[in-house]
Amino acid sequence: MPGNSAPITISEVRGATRRSRDDRVAVEEPLEIRLGYETASGRRDRSISITMRTPGHDAELATGFLFTESIIRDSADIALVKPCGPPAPDSGYNNVMRVELESGVDVDLDRLQRHFYTTSSCGVCGKASLEALRISGASKRPFDDTRFSREMLTALPDKLRTTQKTFDETGGLHAAAAFNSDGELLVTHEDVGRHNAVDKVVGTLLSRNLLPANDLGLLVSGRASFELMQKALMAGMPILAAVSAPSSLAVDLAREFNVTLVGFLRGDNFNIYAAEERIV
Amino acid sequence: MPGNSAPITISEVRGATRRSRDDRVAVEEPLEIRLGYETASGRRDRSISITMRTPGHDAELATGFLFTESIIRDSADIALVKPCGPPAPDSGYNNVMRVELESGVDVDLDRLQRHFYTTSSCGVCGKASLEALRISGASKRPFDDTRFSREMLTALPDKLRTTQKTFDETGGLHAAAAFNSDGELLVTHEDVGRHNAVDKVVGTLLSRNLLPANDLGLLVSGRASFELMQKALMAGMPILAAVSAPSSLAVDLAREFNVTLVGFLRGDNFNIYAAEERIV
Repeated sequence: MPGNSAPITISEVRGATRRSRDDRVAVEEPLEIRLGYETASGRRDRSISITMRTPGHDAELATGFLFTESIIRDSADIALVKPCGPPAPDSGYNNVMRVELESGVDVDLDRLQRHFYTTSSCGVCGKASLEALRISGASKRPFDDTRFSREMLTALPDKLRTTQKTFDETGGLHAAAAFNSDGELLVTHEDVGRHNAVDKVVGTLLSRNLLPANDLGLLVSGRASFELMQKALMAGMPILAAVSAPSSLAVDLAREFNVTLVGFLRGDNFNIYAAEERIV
Repeated sequence: MPGNSAPITISEVRGATRRSRDDRVAVEEPLEIRLGYETASGRRDRSISITMRTPGHDAELATGFLFTESIIRDSADIALVKPCGPPAPDSGYNNVMRVELESGVDVDLDRLQRHFYTTSSCGVCGKASLEALRISGASKRPFDDTRFSREMLTALPDKLRTTQKTFDETGGLHAAAAFNSDGELLVTHEDVGRHNAVDKVVGTLLSRNLLPANDLGLLVSGRASFELMQKALMAGMPILAAVSAPSSLAVDLAREFNVTLVGFLRGDNFNIYAAEERIV
């Protein structure tokens, strides 16, 4: 299995200088956890969770999840933990982990109140399935005339920071904003969940009839995960700018759908991971 | 509805000095999103997501979620968005948002591949329901002899940092560790998902037959959310120490179950949000 960071070529912007260089990003891939267990009417096999994770120690992730969700109480409850099927052909990662419980273990899945997905197939195979899973309705962005300037982008984090009232009070909250090419923040929201902050921004744009937001960008205070990239894409936004690092799958998604992805937006500097043509 | 940060009294540790002071934490409360829609056999009402969010702009959160998950395509799809039922009596927040779709809208919930919960009741009422939802199997910790020293705690973040190989390469990854009262990190893991890093730690403790880990603490590189507090509790750990801020619900849970909660663990300083007796 490949490692938990992946090589990548990026555009590094340092003040007015832009150059290409090799870098690494944290790998983000889906893991489906499947549970095999016995019922009065025979053995069953059920997909109980899909989580976006960094590959490695997947057996521990699966069993730790089952333990903290009260599905198992003891390591003696586990008969077998093993990857299901061959590695995904596109990424090389095993993205399905199967946990077989001992036959005496009483499983009450009503206890499992968390992250239920409805996928029924056993194959979560990286990008191909993810597109089917999550990107329904999105299409590759054409190269249109939308452009965003370097100076505008580097001014964004300070503007966002001044809107973060609750962060000022508590020191811990994510923020997201929609910005235009003049660098105005049209909508900003804070939330303990980064995906919620983005959903609030998208919902506000929706209520103002501004979707698809083909001329607006999405700014986030933290890292750029697959999930946030997916939301920017669904909202029709041509650029996602993050104050911190992107994940591998966020980069893959951005490149595939031709959305500009900016990370480590700090001071006069940032990195461009996809569709750098939009930045002037 | 109350605001999105909440007042709290904490113990502030600054070097060898400890004093009580008033502070604020970001509010974290569950939001259940319910969808009303028409099918060939009549109107239906279904709970489609529960997310831990900071209250405020809940209508936008609900509609933004529906939009980015491709359930709705346009604001014209929405007939009505309104809170369901009275505010939760313990917290005062409305934690259920109902979205009624127009009758012509074709809803294919197979599209919704995310965060399916199995709750069927309409009442997500803050702490009371959350306990039933998520804390099955946990019990209030007795005050035993387990103690953790201030000097040991303040040395932990640097130790964790030296284990973060992938963070060094990529600049963006969460880390979690299990530590003992001598300040040794017994297990450390990195992941793009903070809950995954913690599940990997718990799964590793499980495989070593170290659960319940009544004499170990959980260290996390970021913020302390409800979810992480819940995992520490389920693993039997008497203390959760976070480099960044805790949420309101993490504090509530820690106080209720008598688990020590440390936040803003930086340099010689940290704050104690619950069960400060364990820190000497």
